[in-house]
Amino acid sequence: MVERVDIAIIGTGPAGISAALTAKNRGKSFLLFGSRQLSEKIGKAHEIRNYPGTGFVSGTELAEAFQRHLAEAEIEITETRIGAVYAMGDYFALQAGEDMIEARTVILATGVVQAKPLPGEEALLGRGVSYCATCDAPLYRGKDVLVIGYSPREEPEAAFLASACRTVIYFPMYTGETNLPENVTVVREKVTGLSQDGNLRKAATESGEYAADGVFILREAVAPGQLVPGLETEGAHVAVNRKMETSLPGVYACGDITGTPYQYAKAAGEGNVAAISAAVYLDQKKA
Amino acid sequence: MVERVDIAIIGTGPAGISAALTAKNRGKSFLLFGSRQLSEKIGKAHEIRNYPGTGFVSGTELAEAFQRHLAEAEIEITETRIGAVYAMGDYFALQAGEDMIEARTVILATGVVQAKPLPGEEALLGRGVSYCATCDAPLYRGKDVLVIGYSPREEPEAAFLASACRTVIYFPMYTGETNLPENVTVVREKVTGLSQDGNLRKAATESGEYAADGVFILREAVAPGQLVPGLETEGAHVAVNRKMETSLPGVYACGDITGTPYQYAKAAGEGNVAAISAAVYLDQKKA
Repeated sequence: MVERVDIAIIGTGPAGISAALTAKNRGKSFLLFGSRQLSEKIGKAHEIRNYPGTGFVSGTELAEAFQRHLAEAEIEITETRIGAVYAMGDYFALQAGEDMIEARTVILATGVVQAKPLPGEEALLGRGVSYCATCDAPLYRGKDVLVIGYSPREEPEAAFLASACRTVIYFPMYTGETNLPENVTVVREKVTGLSQDGNLRKAATESGEYAADGVFILREAVAPGQLVPGLETEGAHVAVNRKMETSLPGVYACGDITGTPYQYAKAAGEGNVAAISAAVYLDQKKA
Repeated sequence: MVERVDIAIIGTGPAGISAALTAKNRGKSFLLFGSRQLSEKIGKAHEIRNYPGTGFVSGTELAEAFQRHLAEAEIEITETRIGAVYAMGDYFALQAGEDMIEARTVILATGVVQAKPLPGEEALLGRGVSYCATCDAPLYRGKDVLVIGYSPREEPEAAFLASACRTVIYFPMYTGETNLPENVTVVREKVTGLSQDGNLRKAATESGEYAADGVFILREAVAPGQLVPGLETEGAHVAVNRKMETSLPGVYACGDITGTPYQYAKAAGEGNVAAISAAVYLDQKKA
């Protein structure tokens, strides 16, 4: 029997952290999914001057302050990538690698996909393009795949594919060393577009073309409509009201995923509201 | 000629402070009106556990962190009470005691009036009940007034009335010493209701009844509709959208004044958004 938590919080930027702190305050059971390094974006910020109460801080300092606060509140981060969220009636099923996790409510705090999709990417949605190696690897057992990775954090996913697929070609969309098993072929060419040719999916680069059975695109954030089928979106953003309610009852969103401005204080405030809305929803269902 | 600032921010709780920090970041000129002790409510909070980044802190510690941040950002607080905000076409006139201040946009962050109005108070709005001594004292020169004060901070206002009115009876709605001039009569009875009798306004207490030409009710926060005539309100709250825009173009609201949840992170997030919305509005007007 799978344990069912009150709230699944997806994302460890300021919005997800804030939601977790407030969920804890409200005495709800929850899981916080993300990276113990928190959001990649925070660490990269040079100086943040307008997050009230911390003074002028570097992104690293703010991330450390968040980490200390989580530790003080005894909140753990579950380093599992959520591949998809399915509405199951009175609960939600979250695909976490090969496991399923159940939650009564879901708070989406996954940030915004700032990278534009690759030319041709959207046309191949659901037709040979995948965003989650652990979710879809079984479909490509013994087959050939192309993997487009946007950060070194994606490399373990590529390595996992190499254990199941016949061949894996990895295109790092970043500079620096890669750390991958020998049976992964690393091609240092920027992918410029995707296309389909019969049963094959093709990736074009500045200097060539590569074909395989499937293409994996591994980015830190996936588009919200891909993550939660049926969710009402506005472009790259999730439609929310002032209570951070989305179009799906029991699903809340907060932070950059809900739209501009992309700001730390705004994200933290929305995470706080989302957690309270989820708590009120849970309390009303119980009553 | 009165200097006209880009943004007048009214209130020094987390919402107003956040708005000021972001206005500074955006290079806008602004005035931050409130108390150097910041919000009365913050200092009273026993422990705040879910304001992300500060850890578990007392209200006093959080207020001190905000004060340090304002100092680092070189932001001054103007300790003037704003009695009213009038829309003047392409700018706003703010009544600050006997002075008028001009601003291109206004951010309301005055908190919420949690005290219920006194029985009979609302019926006397605009008919002998006033909320601003410095604004309305001239109307009662040489006359008799009753003053209902909700905190010791109101005492200077009562003292000011005593310099203009014939008699001042002061009802402290709090315990502890009062510090008032000799010509103010302090009556230590809780006011339980207001009424009108011909040209006289009456205040009833547990043990008696007092009559005068006018009644002043001095609370930390005034109802938003009293502060900004014409503003669309929802009960004690100001109606806003996700950009923190109110029904009046150029007027934004943030923090407890926009509704529940009454939370520090929510307030700070909304202040951040309000300041960005004001900055975008100013930039578009200039363009």
